[in-house]
Amino acid sequence: MSLELRQTIYDSLSSFDFVDPHTHINALQPAAKNLADILGYHYYTELAHSAGLARTQIEADGLSPKEKVGLLAENFAPLENTIQASWFIEIAREFFGFTEDRLTPDNWESLYDHSEQVMSAPDWSQQVLKKSRLTGVFLTNDFDDPLAGFDTNVYIPCLRTDDLVFHLSKPVVRERLAKASGTEARNATSVRNAITKLFEHFCANGARACAISLPPTFAPEPVADGAADAALAKVLAGGDVSAEHARTVSNFVFWTLTQHCAEFRLPFDLMIGVNRAVYREGVYQGQDLYDSRVSLIQYQRLLNAFPQVTFPISVLASVTNQELVSYAWIFPNVVTNGHWWYSNTPTYIEHDARARLEAVPQTKQIGYYSDMYKLEFALPKFNMYKRILAKILAEQFVQARGWSETRAIELGTKVLRDNTAQVFAANRS
Amino acid sequence: MSLELRQTIYDSLSSFDFVDPHTHINALQPAAKNLADILGYHYYTELAHSAGLARTQIEADGLSPKEKVGLLAENFAPLENTIQASWFIEIAREFFGFTEDRLTPDNWESLYDHSEQVMSAPDWSQQVLKKSRLTGVFLTNDFDDPLAGFDTNVYIPCLRTDDLVFHLSKPVVRERLAKASGTEARNATSVRNAITKLFEHFCANGARACAISLPPTFAPEPVADGAADAALAKVLAGGDVSAEHARTVSNFVFWTLTQHCAEFRLPFDLMIGVNRAVYREGVYQGQDLYDSRVSLIQYQRLLNAFPQVTFPISVLASVTNQELVSYAWIFPNVVTNGHWWYSNTPTYIEHDARARLEAVPQTKQIGYYSDMYKLEFALPKFNMYKRILAKILAEQFVQARGWSETRAIELGTKVLRDNTAQVFAANRS
Amino acid sequence: MSLELRQTIYDSLSSFDFVDPHTHINALQPAAKNLADILGYHYYTELAHSAGLARTQIEADGLSPKEKVGLLAENFAPLENTIQASWFIEIAREFFGFTEDRLTPDNWESLYDHSEQVMSAPDWSQQVLKKSRLTGVFLTNDFDDPLAGFDTNVYIPCLRTDDLVFHLSKPVVRERLAKASGTEARNATSVRNAITKLFEHFCANGARACAISLPPTFAPEPVADGAADAALAKVLAGGDVSAEHARTVSNFVFWTLTQHCAEFRLPFDLMIGVNRAVYREGVYQGQDLYDSRVSLIQYQRLLNAFPQVTFPISVLASVTNQELVSYAWIFPNVVTNGHWWYSNTPTYIEHDARARLEAVPQTKQIGYYSDMYKLEFALPKFNMYKRILAKILAEQFVQARGWSETRAIELGTKVLRDNTAQVFAANRS
Repeated sequence: MSLELRQTIYDSLSSFDFVDPHTHINALQPAAKNLADILGYHYYTELAHSAGLARTQIEADGLSPKEKVGLLAENFAPLENTIQASWFIEIAREFFGFTEDRLTPDNWESLYDHSEQVMSAPDWSQQVLKKSRLTGVFLTNDFDDPLAGFDTNVYIPCLRTDDLVFHLSKPVVRERLAKASGTEARNATSVRNAITKLFEHFCANGARACAISLPPTFAPEPVADGAADAALAKVLAGGDVSAEHARTVSNFVFWTLTQHCAEFRLPFDLMIGVNRAVYREGVYQGQDLYDSRVSLIQYQRLLNAFPQVTFPISVLASVTNQELVSYAWIFPNVVTNGHWWYSNTPTYIEHDARARLEAVPQTKQIGYYSDMYKLEFALPKFNMYKRILAKILAEQFVQARGWSETRAIELGTKVLRDNTAQVFAANRS
Repeated sequence: MSLELRQTIYDSLSSFDFVDPHTHINALQPAAKNLADILGYHYYTELAHSAGLARTQIEADGLSPKEKVGLLAENFAPLENTIQASWFIEIAREFFGFTEDRLTPDNWESLYDHSEQVMSAPDWSQQVLKKSRLTGVFLTNDFDDPLAGFDTNVYIPCLRTDDLVFHLSKPVVRERLAKASGTEARNATSVRNAITKLFEHFCANGARACAISLPPTFAPEPVADGAADAALAKVLAGGDVSAEHARTVSNFVFWTLTQHCAEFRLPFDLMIGVNRAVYREGVYQGQDLYDSRVSLIQYQRLLNAFPQVTFPISVLASVTNQELVSYAWIFPNVVTNGHWWYSNTPTYIEHDARARLEAVPQTKQIGYYSDMYKLEFALPKFNMYKRILAKILAEQFVQARGWSETRAIELGTKVLRDNTAQVFAANRS
Repeated sequence: MSLELRQTIYDSLSSFDFVDPHTHINALQPAAKNLADILGYHYYTELAHSAGLARTQIEADGLSPKEKVGLLAENFAPLENTIQASWFIEIAREFFGFTEDRLTPDNWESLYDHSEQVMSAPDWSQQVLKKSRLTGVFLTNDFDDPLAGFDTNVYIPCLRTDDLVFHLSKPVVRERLAKASGTEARNATSVRNAITKLFEHFCANGARACAISLPPTFAPEPVADGAADAALAKVLAGGDVSAEHARTVSNFVFWTLTQHCAEFRLPFDLMIGVNRAVYREGVYQGQDLYDSRVSLIQYQRLLNAFPQVTFPISVLASVTNQELVSYAWIFPNVVTNGHWWYSNTPTYIEHDARARLEAVPQTKQIGYYSDMYKLEFALPKFNMYKRILAKILAEQFVQARGWSETRAIELGTKVLRDNTAQVFAANRS
């Protein structure tokens, strides 16, 4: 009975269109051109490498897309237990008519050839959106993205700010900033002015959020202009930058961005907890890990200082999820946001989502985002989430609390669809 | 079959009287007078505020109880997914004949009026106790509580000591202490003497426990009288107190309290992990959060120094629960105690209780306490716990380990009822 | 249906022989001689002590084995809920024809007498191995173990190195090292040479792994010979050793061991997170606990420096398991290894194993080891794991992901049996 109920709820949760509130889609090339765009996703290359395939093979110069897929398919067996592998199989079956359960050295080539043909349809990305029931996807735009050439109602701009906060010491970043804003970053005032220009540009082009990923040590605090000027002077002078000065600049830029979120009424997505380049010999995008010893208490000052800014927060490790639940339960400006990266697997999604659904107001939960680089991934990732959500609703709400199916489905619909519209629209300027 | 078995076990666990080993009941006014006493519980006001209701509205001067309930009922929809909301509905249905599933702008007023009438019965609190199957509830008494005017067999005194340990620098606390103990706190000796007076008073009035909540940074250690004298001198002199001196005083008072627990044979309830006033603009009692980076290793010295004192320990975050299980498995004087505050939701209760039931001796587990402010809350909170306990017993003991239902129910009865009597009576002087 | 499916999968997982990849078996006396060898296991003595039995009673001089079992049997009731108690009952039923569900003051003696007779069979240890379907067990050998007098194909040597890394300051350890290696440890060079001798001896005798348990504060880094010489000089001079010098020596020895693992192609089992002697009055082996605030980021430098060494990693607390999953997903040289000690209970095994099975390549998971001191424990411990594994495979792979039973059983077989052979054989010299 439980399994049937889960299926019924799942079917209902699959019957409406929605928006994916966080992706890395390139709006100018949103769908895959071939299977290499899919199997080349870092989730597969890093797992294949982890299972023994040399990085030099995976990233060999001159490897054609088809050769790359062949290489990864030949080395797919060790990862076929992973949920990530199941996403690939679901993509192959749902989009390309694949009828098998496993990707093998014997069947990859026909899948490759057939899928390439399917993907060559001029309206392929629209087909994918439609089949995935997506009416829009949030982007992750560099701060100097021109935001031109695409429909910002479907491909919704989002200002990604890691470079500004953590890499302003790099000349190339400052050059990009100068070019994008028409303002050279010399001191607190000019940095602030440059940031204003970026927000004007993004908001004029329909941006719905500002976003950043943060290391576990980050603990934002305000910086006076004088201190920011001094630290910026050191940083701009080049050479080695002390950790203290680097932190001052990061804090200043971060706080200034938050002030702009307040002014421009943009939610600020905080993705908390990643350490970059922990495994230096890893494949592209497969080098980052984390230290799970992080606490939202580090954000106490920020959350108190900006009651008018909504912070959809993602945490990297499941052990931080209870803090997220509690902070969202207490702070009006904290919203739980999806299941990020290393927590985006069923065990952790189920444990974390269940805790949220029973203790955070239903209006303050963004259930899921795909984090995808190519449109084809939304379907299996959201389906995975919907199955888990249906299980929680069936077992914890219908069975344990006596809710009607209809009411349970309403709750599911809210966290899957309605809240995205509310949270990211209510604050629009 | 599993659901039926859970129901059978639940029914058995609901068939006996028991004592609630930790509440915030006011013994002179134990039950609610109206729904505002129930819906005004901080669990609702803070969730309503979190979901968007202004604190100034919730805490507006001159708001009548009925107006307050109206306000909260109008703003109940965003929180109706929460387990806390389910407690309210269960109270309304079980105590006041409410027949609906949701509290709405349309039905709150009749519920209010009817419930006020029900609650006006002169024996209302006895009715609630009886229906809830409670024969007693532990209180949380200020150290200067006269403990007079109520039956201490039903309303069982418990000496709460946060003020003594953390706020002795406040003149008002020292004045209260002087008044309660007849001794002015000037130095180590006089503080010790004052505490002795408090213990004499509490134990003469049937106290069964000493209790305290502790911040995540606390790591108790003994303080020599000389060092305590010096720190007390600084603290009593007024003005700014250094963190070092404040810590010395806290450690001295805490260690002295523990010595008294040993002497007076009182268990010492430690509630570990809360940071106070993290969200300063929060509603009353809705400002506290935590840093989950805490370890019971901080209590190593204490637990070794006082083998004769029983420490029923509550932890605020589920991520600390495995440490609690392990410490209770190794240290004879550690008892697991309930599911506290932000861990008092089904996901965390289930995960944590299951781990305890399979690795901590059955005699060393206090299954649950309500932490309630008004008697009406024991029923839905304990029912929630009993449902989860029944699920664990059914799935992990009867199904997975082949236990008989009878034996599983015996285990449940122990952690629900018997251990409370044992742990808090065995050590009585 | 789910329960039937679990049973079917469990039966299949119980139908083949395998190797236990980590135990504390004494190869010269592998099985128990009487029930005291079983009930004297620290899991029982510490739980009985925790539940109130005095250490002085449990460890009384002159207590005969039978008296010891009587004492523990009389005090078994408080722990009979624990999973550890269920292991004992399963041993009694499976090996000694015990037909009851509980060990009581009335039935222990006949069990004792009968079991002693059964265990007196000259081939008892072979009987146990056969019934447990074990073809081999890894040992935990002191670095100066002669490794003589047993079949190293069944009792597989493993070089345990805690003493070398953390206790080289003790004269007795250096004497043992000198004797075992023929080299006196005076400086970096001689320590290195002594270690080389140990590895030669162990590898000549079929060792398959090097192993160590590590405190939560440990964060390995390389030490130059000059710095190692200076620290060793201080340490060898006797007297108090500074924490800094002790750490330098530990780091030097640890790094040198890892270099030898690379050279001799031995996997290095890291068991991360234990604090020794936290409860100083605890029973033998029942004094250790932990601080769960540990991160694998502490091993970043090591994991990057030794890509050619396989590190099967065990973590003590379940809250570190997600890091382990993520590090094994990214680093080719990290393998997840069993469920260690305080995490070896069903709640944590299920949560942790499920996360591994869905995100770590299936070739990089050592599902379980028994950690046993006597052979009889493999059967109930592995059965516990197999039941949980069967549940995960049934619910998460067959039901949730549509896998065939056959495919699910293949995955289970890999983590239970095949990977042990692969991981610990592939790297053999």
